[in-house]
Amino acid sequence: MPPRLCIIGLGLIGGSFALALKRAGFDGEIVGYGRSESSLQVARARGAIDHYELSIAQALAGCDAVILAVPMGAMGDILKQCAPCLAEHTIISDAGSVKASFIAQARACLGSLRRVVPGHPIAGTEHSGIHAAFPELFQDRRVVLTPDTDTEPAAINYMRHLWEQTGATVDLMDAQLHDQLLAHTSHLPHALAFALVNLLANDAASNSLFRYVAGGFRDFTRIASSDPTMWRDICLANADSLTRALRSYRDQLDQLLGQISSADGEALHTYFMNAKSARDAHLEQPQG
Amino acid sequence: MPPRLCIIGLGLIGGSFALALKRAGFDGEIVGYGRSESSLQVARARGAIDHYELSIAQALAGCDAVILAVPMGAMGDILKQCAPCLAEHTIISDAGSVKASFIAQARACLGSLRRVVPGHPIAGTEHSGIHAAFPELFQDRRVVLTPDTDTEPAAINYMRHLWEQTGATVDLMDAQLHDQLLAHTSHLPHALAFALVNLLANDAASNSLFRYVAGGFRDFTRIASSDPTMWRDICLANADSLTRALRSYRDQLDQLLGQISSADGEALHTYFMNAKSARDAHLEQPQG
Repeated sequence: MPPRLCIIGLGLIGGSFALALKRAGFDGEIVGYGRSESSLQVARARGAIDHYELSIAQALAGCDAVILAVPMGAMGDILKQCAPCLAEHTIISDAGSVKASFIAQARACLGSLRRVVPGHPIAGTEHSGIHAAFPELFQDRRVVLTPDTDTEPAAINYMRHLWEQTGATVDLMDAQLHDQLLAHTSHLPHALAFALVNLLANDAASNSLFRYVAGGFRDFTRIASSDPTMWRDICLANADSLTRALRSYRDQLDQLLGQISSADGEALHTYFMNAKSARDAHLEQPQG
Repeated sequence: MPPRLCIIGLGLIGGSFALALKRAGFDGEIVGYGRSESSLQVARARGAIDHYELSIAQALAGCDAVILAVPMGAMGDILKQCAPCLAEHTIISDAGSVKASFIAQARACLGSLRRVVPGHPIAGTEHSGIHAAFPELFQDRRVVLTPDTDTEPAAINYMRHLWEQTGATVDLMDAQLHDQLLAHTSHLPHALAFALVNLLANDAASNSLFRYVAGGFRDFTRIASSDPTMWRDICLANADSLTRALRSYRDQLDQLLGQISSADGEALHTYFMNAKSARDAHLEQPQG
């Protein structure tokens, strides 16, 4: 029997995952399911899925694996809908940005984590929806899988192999560590960009302000054009790690404020030099 | 007599300004002067300047205008060196990111602001030096001139015309207003990016952290690879406006922290939606 996958949620991530598998010559069937039939139609027209179902039971029937690529806020509901329809052998994975909350929901809905392989592809754009999907999204990116100690190695390997076909490098990591790392590298920067745009937008002179931005501002705030629902859900799901990161960041700002207020040129130079050195060392080499 | 310009400081900005004028068919002579003879040699080899001088008196002799494109911290010294060598009719302009401090220094050195046309091209990259210069840097960008009420209209028009030849749009603005605007649109984002990279770099797990960054982080922190000396000088020169902007930004973070801590999904969604709407409205249309 050729493998059969179900992807729930054909947006940027789910759609790109399916397109990448198809491009890599995936030798099975990909079934789509989701809230929006028009997205499913586009996904089929773009060749991301072979067909779609409007009943979750039919979508899951005979599936080797199901990947939940829905907003974090919808994850609990979808897991509840899936639970009664899952075959014993079906692997359950996801693509959400926060892992501990997904694991807690999966445990509550499914009882066991034996077949649950939580995943997070560290890739995305500020756009969303099936129209924004493209098969190269995961090329040379990292995908983190955060299995439980109960998770069966065969299930982990199955998901690892699927993601590797998309061009990604797969890492295994503890879910709590993942959530702490990503709070710093992804969730915090998004929060900071949203806050900067709001500061300017709330200003009475905001029309003038936005006229005098250079390329740096444009790059800096690109992620503030991301989907508000997705980011609300991420902030709520990773609240503990994110609030700690935000507080640490506020301490950095206080340090910088102190250096500027006391006109401490040497300290400022050291502060900026450290940042430049770290960024150049870690991020100026080719991606990966 | 064909016009004669002197550019002091052939780095990214001075070099690109000269290259842009030459590309536009500037019908006069461009003389270079600067601290580093090797940069002057490269500037001449790249066709940015016609020749260079190692004596500031010779560089300024017979010039219609001199443009100071040196770091903010060097501006006072350069003005002092220029003052005894300037002809009565020579226009003095600059390309610094902070305008009130330049004006104070120019007034102190030159006595009168009649021939002083402070300028700030709102363009740049995270790179610096003559090798990074390119003639299109100012194309479709804004250049702000902040003349004093004493500045002669002919001097303002001269500089306006020069900058327009580089492809830029020229605006006149009060120097204080400029410094407040740019504190928000440029100096604050740079400070925030430096602070974020330092937060990650100070972390014991920083090697792992930087491995798990996505494109958004890369864009967000690009400006943290900027020149530390330049940014130290800008922070010191615009300390008042920048500390006010940093404190307002800290208030935004506190608001966001409150919303996350109290799990107020509706407030978070509104907060992110406002930011996305403002950014999409102001920055998603073509540049300009």
